Amino acid sequence: MPPEGTGDAVDLPEEPRVDESTLLRDIFRAWAGRSSPKHVETGPGDDACVLRLESGGVLLATVDQAIAGRHFQPDTPMDLVGRKAVARSASDLAAMGVGLEWGATLATAAFPAGFPQGLAEGLARGLRAAAEEFGLPLVGGDIASFASEGTPLTLTVTALGFSRERPVLRSGASVGDEVWVTGRLGGAWAGERHLRFTPRLPEASALRALLGDRLHAMMDVSDGLGVDLGRLASASGVRIEVESGLLPVSEGCDWRAAVGDGEDYELAFVAAPGSALPAVLPGGVLLTRIGRAVSGEGCHVRTNAGVWEDVTERGWVHG
Amino acid sequence: MPPEGTGDAVDLPEEPRVDESTLLRDIFRAWAGRSSPKHVETGPGDDACVLRLESGGVLLATVDQAIAGRHFQPDTPMDLVGRKAVARSASDLAAMGVGLEWGATLATAAFPAGFPQGLAEGLARGLRAAAEEFGLPLVGGDIASFASEGTPLTLTVTALGFSRERPVLRSGASVGDEVWVTGRLGGAWAGERHLRFTPRLPEASALRALLGDRLHAMMDVSDGLGVDLGRLASASGVRIEVESGLLPVSEGCDWRAAVGDGEDYELAFVAAPGSALPAVLPGGVLLTRIGRAVSGEGCHVRTNAGVWEDVTERGWVHG
Repeated sequence: MPPEGTGDAVDLPEEPRVDESTLLRDIFRAWAGRSSPKHVETGPGDDACVLRLESGGVLLATVDQAIAGRHFQPDTPMDLVGRKAVARSASDLAAMGVGLEWGATLATAAFPAGFPQGLAEGLARGLRAAAEEFGLPLVGGDIASFASEGTPLTLTVTALGFSRERPVLRSGASVGDEVWVTGRLGGAWAGERHLRFTPRLPEASALRALLGDRLHAMMDVSDGLGVDLGRLASASGVRIEVESGLLPVSEGCDWRAAVGDGEDYELAFVAAPGSALPAVLPGGVLLTRIGRAVSGEGCHVRTNAGVWEDVTERGWVHG
Repeated sequence: MPPEGTGDAVDLPEEPRVDESTLLRDIFRAWAGRSSPKHVETGPGDDACVLRLESGGVLLATVDQAIAGRHFQPDTPMDLVGRKAVARSASDLAAMGVGLEWGATLATAAFPAGFPQGLAEGLARGLRAAAEEFGLPLVGGDIASFASEGTPLTLTVTALGFSRERPVLRSGASVGDEVWVTGRLGGAWAGERHLRFTPRLPEASALRALLGDRLHAMMDVSDGLGVDLGRLASASGVRIEVESGLLPVSEGCDWRAAVGDGEDYELAFVAAPGSALPAVLPGGVLLTRIGRAVSGEGCHVRTNAGVWEDVTERGWVHG
């Protein structure tokens, strides 16, 4: 966790630092990115990969893990565990900024030895209900058991989506563009928001319809606005500047919590300058312009006192 | 492990019994199978799910887990761990009995705390090399760390494939059909074959080309021929009868090992009676007719002494 937070950090599990996970992730990306068969339009490194279909359209695919003690407390009700596992991957699909003609999910679960049947059933119900709610029906999966009772329940959800629109990548921001976010940021883990959020699939589709080609870049805010916008800035080759006073903070949070808490699962997006957007999307989700893209690198916040803070590594990675 | 095996069981990890895993898997299938949106042609319960593309063709998707102490020994070299994780899912794609125009994989890894960087890199190389070898380039993934050092390395691989052919399901066998297998069966875990096998993707495509619509049903043999053919029999509503004397057993194995050892990753398939097939496919893989489909249920082997044995639950599930 970042040094400044919501002040409710007492319930948080200990998280590995960004360094370790980023390093490992980089290895995978470097190795995986070496070959580019023609059907692979976008490989690792964005919120989802993009596979081009010759007959038209693209398949989006993404996978995320959800591990007890890392992504949810071990005593979390199973229906919420299943929901979060699906919602995390659905949020990555949303971050591709297209409307989906259809979607689907595949789930895996590795259970601690002796895991109660009733809880497993509750998890299955939670996975299935969330998958249907988000329009991504559960079409396959795999179940395994660990040898030990002490091993944490470990889930993965692969989310697939088909679209005829051009996906919006992290790399499309240009100098002069404006930076926006949906919803409110900060304090998600301390409450139940990290378990009960609804992935921004309709909002992503609505933004695409409103902005068209003026929607230049998009990602979801999961690890923390600072580190996440830092990644977008890096992918686009720009510096992102955020005004602390513009940040839509959650009740009881300051701007540092909004930048560093993570677990928001909102959309951060970059649009051509002067784009007209409503203050609220159909469905009630807030839209806020928080900053802009300029020459340089990293993500930086200007405090109300006029001081610049580098927040490029502000946030946490879920390990 | 089944009571009769290759005699080399001393190195085998303790595996959960079929009961537990089958039960859990059934829960997922039951819940997942409730809704059938029109793009979901085949949901859970086959080797891969089948998603129908309006513009033509189908997307196949499958996910499998590979866990240290379950699917590979903890001291297995990382390149072979990565290879096996990819190959298991690739084998499920092959079992759909179509030629693939393209494929792709997504991988996840959850590492024990303090997992050495060098080993992680070796794993990444192994995943990537296998994915490319099998024509399923690694396009995405996710990495996490467990809180404890004692937690087993846990991998998943999602394999995707696009085809314009009609997939061959487990449910297509009819009374009177003949049952075949590729390669040799038994003893795979005791040696290194379970780590070094090559998924039968070209063989599946070749069989489809040779047999066309005479190829009625197919699956891969991973848990053991008995339990796997038992599942095919159940899906098709037939009884499968195998002649023990026809089984292509691995060197040093008897028919019981061939039926119960599992980890073969060969193809079992059901073809119209009288189908002419070569003894060996291009590439050198053996084809053997081992039995037939009749009225009834389950999978049964006739020993050389003429005694019928029910092998429907002969095999092991990897937990």
